[in-house]
Amino acid sequence: MSDSLTNGESDVSLFDGSILKELDFSECLATYKPTISHTSPGENLIMRPLQLSDYEKGYMKLLTHLTVVGDVTKKEFEDRFCKMRGCADSYYVVVVEDTSVGKVIGSVTLAVEQKFIRQCSSRARVEDVVVDDEYRGKQLGKLLLDVAMLLSKKIGCYKVSLECKDKLVPFYEQFGYVAGEQNYMV
Amino acid sequence: MSDSLTNGESDVSLFDGSILKELDFSECLATYKPTISHTSPGENLIMRPLQLSDYEKGYMKLLTHLTVVGDVTKKEFEDRFCKMRGCADSYYVVVVEDTSVGKVIGSVTLAVEQKFIRQCSSRARVEDVVVDDEYRGKQLGKLLLDVAMLLSKKIGCYKVSLECKDKLVPFYEQFGYVAGEQNYMV
Repeated sequence: MSDSLTNGESDVSLFDGSILKELDFSECLATYKPTISHTSPGENLIMRPLQLSDYEKGYMKLLTHLTVVGDVTKKEFEDRFCKMRGCADSYYVVVVEDTSVGKVIGSVTLAVEQKFIRQCSSRARVEDVVVDDEYRGKQLGKLLLDVAMLLSKKIGCYKVSLECKDKLVPFYEQFGYVAGEQNYMV
Repeated sequence: MSDSLTNGESDVSLFDGSILKELDFSECLATYKPTISHTSPGENLIMRPLQLSDYEKGYMKLLTHLTVVGDVTKKEFEDRFCKMRGCADSYYVVVVEDTSVGKVIGSVTLAVEQKFIRQCSSRARVEDVVVDDEYRGKQLGKLLLDVAMLLSKKIGCYKVSLECKDKLVPFYEQFGYVAGEQNYMV
C-alpha cells in the first residue's frame, strides 16, 4: 500500500463511511421485527464500508457463497480495492462485521455508473448480496438491501436495478423492485 | 479544463484509442454486406473514442434519440467527461463521426464494473446504443455492437450484458446475446 493511502491510519475504507451514518432509515424501521437498523444491526454486529483489513476478516471467503471467486492474494485484493477507491462515487461495498469474532458475515455492493443522459446523472446497480449461512434469519439480507436502496437515493441516482434468479423475484418485490420493461441479455 | 488534462493538445479522448485499432475484427468481417469495419465504417465516417470536442459535434443531441438528456452545459459535460476519464478502464464511449459535416452520428458505451469475484475480474455492460436516423441502413448499429463486444473481450471481462426492450430481443440475439437466467428488476 502506498503511504499516501494508508496515511498512518491502521485501516482504509473503500468510501467515506459518514454517508452511511447520514442515511434516513426512518421509512424502513417499521418493517423490521425485532427492530434493527444500519447503525445497530444486531448484537456484536456493525455495518460499515469495506476496509482493506477485510481480506483478513474473511471477505473473499464470504463471496464464495455467491459464485466462483478464485484464489485471490492479498496483493490482488489491495490492487482491486485501490482501483475501485480511485473511481470517485462509484463503488459502495457495505459489509456487516461480527466484532465478537472479527469476521465479515454479510455484504452488498452498490455499483454506480456515471452517465451523460438525464442531466449527467448516474444509475446504480445492486450487486453481490450475500449473508453467511450462520447468520440467516437475522434480517441482515433485508437490511443490506434497504441500505443499498437508501444509498442510491442519497447519491442521487435516477434509477437503481438488480438482476436476480426466478426464485428471488418475490423476495425483491417486497423491497419495491418490479420486473423491468427491459430484457436482460448476456 | 485543467491544463494537465488538455496538456496543450487540441482535444482529449475519453480512453486511449489505440485499443480500438488493436481489435481483431476478422471474426465479424464476413457478417457485413457491404464490408465495413471499425477502421473503415463507411464514406467520410470514422470510429473513435468520445472526445471533449464532441459536445460541439452534437453528441448530447444524439443521445436525445434515446431518452431524456436535459439541458447539459459545456461545463457539465466536461465535468462528467473528466470524472469518467478518471475511472481507469471503466468507460469506453465509442462514437462514429461523419467528418464531412463534423457531426457525431452514432455511439455506444461499454461500461465496465470492477469486481472482487472471479479472480478480481470485471464485467461489462453495453449501454446507450444510438445511431442518427439519417444514417440508418448503413450497418452502424451492428458495427457499434460488435466493437463493444470485441472491446469487452480485449479488456478481459468475464461477462458482457445489456438490457433491451422486447421488440429488440431478436435483434440482439443475432449478436449472440441470449436472454439471461436472471430477471432484471428496477
